[in-house]
Amino acid sequence: MIVVLAGGIGAARFLRGLLAVTSEEIVVVGNTGDDITLHGLRVCPDLDTVTYTLGNAVHEEQGWGRDDETYTVATELAEFGEPTWFRLGDRDLATHLFRRRLLDAGVSLHVVTQRIADRFALPVTLLPMTNDMVETRVLADGREMHFQEYWVGMHASVPVDRIWLQDALTATPAPGVVEAIERADTIVLPPSNPVVSIGTILAVPGIREAVADAPAPVVGVSPIVGGAPVRGMADRMLAAIGVDCTAAAVARHYGAGLLDGWLVDESDASCVPSVEAAGIACRAVPLWMNDVESTAAIAKAALSLAHAG
Amino acid sequence: MIVVLAGGIGAARFLRGLLAVTSEEIVVVGNTGDDITLHGLRVCPDLDTVTYTLGNAVHEEQGWGRDDETYTVATELAEFGEPTWFRLGDRDLATHLFRRRLLDAGVSLHVVTQRIADRFALPVTLLPMTNDMVETRVLADGREMHFQEYWVGMHASVPVDRIWLQDALTATPAPGVVEAIERADTIVLPPSNPVVSIGTILAVPGIREAVADAPAPVVGVSPIVGGAPVRGMADRMLAAIGVDCTAAAVARHYGAGLLDGWLVDESDASCVPSVEAAGIACRAVPLWMNDVESTAAIAKAALSLAHAG
Repeated sequence: MIVVLAGGIGAARFLRGLLAVTSEEIVVVGNTGDDITLHGLRVCPDLDTVTYTLGNAVHEEQGWGRDDETYTVATELAEFGEPTWFRLGDRDLATHLFRRRLLDAGVSLHVVTQRIADRFALPVTLLPMTNDMVETRVLADGREMHFQEYWVGMHASVPVDRIWLQDALTATPAPGVVEAIERADTIVLPPSNPVVSIGTILAVPGIREAVADAPAPVVGVSPIVGGAPVRGMADRMLAAIGVDCTAAAVARHYGAGLLDGWLVDESDASCVPSVEAAGIACRAVPLWMNDVESTAAIAKAALSLAHAG
Repeated sequence: MIVVLAGGIGAARFLRGLLAVTSEEIVVVGNTGDDITLHGLRVCPDLDTVTYTLGNAVHEEQGWGRDDETYTVATELAEFGEPTWFRLGDRDLATHLFRRRLLDAGVSLHVVTQRIADRFALPVTLLPMTNDMVETRVLADGREMHFQEYWVGMHASVPVDRIWLQDALTATPAPGVVEAIERADTIVLPPSNPVVSIGTILAVPGIREAVADAPAPVVGVSPIVGGAPVRGMADRMLAAIGVDCTAAAVARHYGAGLLDGWLVDESDASCVPSVEAAGIACRAVPLWMNDVESTAAIAKAALSLAHAG
């Protein structure tokens, strides 16, 4: 069984490749720090990106949101003067309405997530990292805000002074998360944002410890290639926590206490010795997830590195 | 100032005619007994029908719901296994999302209703009959159900054994309702359902008394023409409360303690003496609301009858 700690687009695409090379059971632990309440609805961007992608219901070009999407409700909400910086599509909205109705009825997020996964016939088990409300907050431009306001609303256009997971201290891992990590044969960190995706999951008390203590090898895929994020704005986030935007620096940030193996891109092959010197097995392979084939090759290399020892 | 106690389509169309013949201020007291929670959202069918109709945003053929409507969210919700018997359109859904968000923030229904009215630039003041949650319930076919389940779900296809407004005893009129009735120059009962629309409004403790005690004349427009409802299924509802489905029987049901004048259709002219014998001034005029002109003539006749004495 393989456990994957997942953010949004990068993780979802990696999972497609992983599904192409293994028939093992896959348990995905998804980031919920980006969750936000919009128009009274609980929106879980990372969980939904994984769900829509693996459920063949994603907007392929965009990488998130539903295919064949329309924005009739959002257009009407704007007429009511409702905020428009985070526009929800009509089909996507049905997911959030369904989720909200169940949460209001007292159903836990991990059960709701399973119900949504069932509707999209997911080939993996998808668990939220926690059922508790936590929230990634950012201090930037002199004020504190929800991560989505910085990321989507401000397009990450200014440096981040501080980033933290609010209410993390009282959160507990969702049922099944620690159990999956403990019984995993392999634990994979896909090329998700090391700060606001994987870092957030590891910030839920008990998860970092479970990963570090797990009998399974932990292998990561660098989200940084040639000194820049493969996608997104991870550089902003790494700067906020004082980590250089390089494949090697991210590996050292996770550290040998957590990571057993680290895949870097061919163009970063020169950093392999320094990562290995830090006690982490490292290999350089092509890391661009251009299609399912190239992504499958990355997933295969990750599994191979994990079990190389 | 004119106060109109309003149900849905019949009242909304009557109001269009009334607006064409008067420049007096109009306060509409709307029925909320039909309100229902669907997909976690508070739906107010009668308030919204008045709003959309007077805001030139209604689906004209249907008489309710939004113009240029689509059903993308409803189609998706069906994929989640959500109930489909009451389908909400996408544009309509924005109203319910906006309402729900404000109600959740602790804003009272009458303030929310005003905010929605503002967005549609309503030429009247629209007040819900109460801010409290009340619910029209029906006993039919051996089981108890929400009125909408009977009306929309079962298409009123079986007789009603009993009908009542749940939680009416502890409800109070919304702020402004009694005050408007007390300072009105005319009070009008449009051709709405005498049981589940006007009867429901009058069932809120304090409203019937205020109407009966108001200094203004109270004039009604019969919703029954030639022994059948002008529209809808009022006959089912009248049968449930033991009232004949005739213009005269409905007038006697309201009674001289409430009504000062009653308009019946030309085809019901023969009942005029019996209504007047009951102490209610009565006139026969064409009551079909075919267009704004014919409806304006009805409204004019109602105002004229109210102030004939």
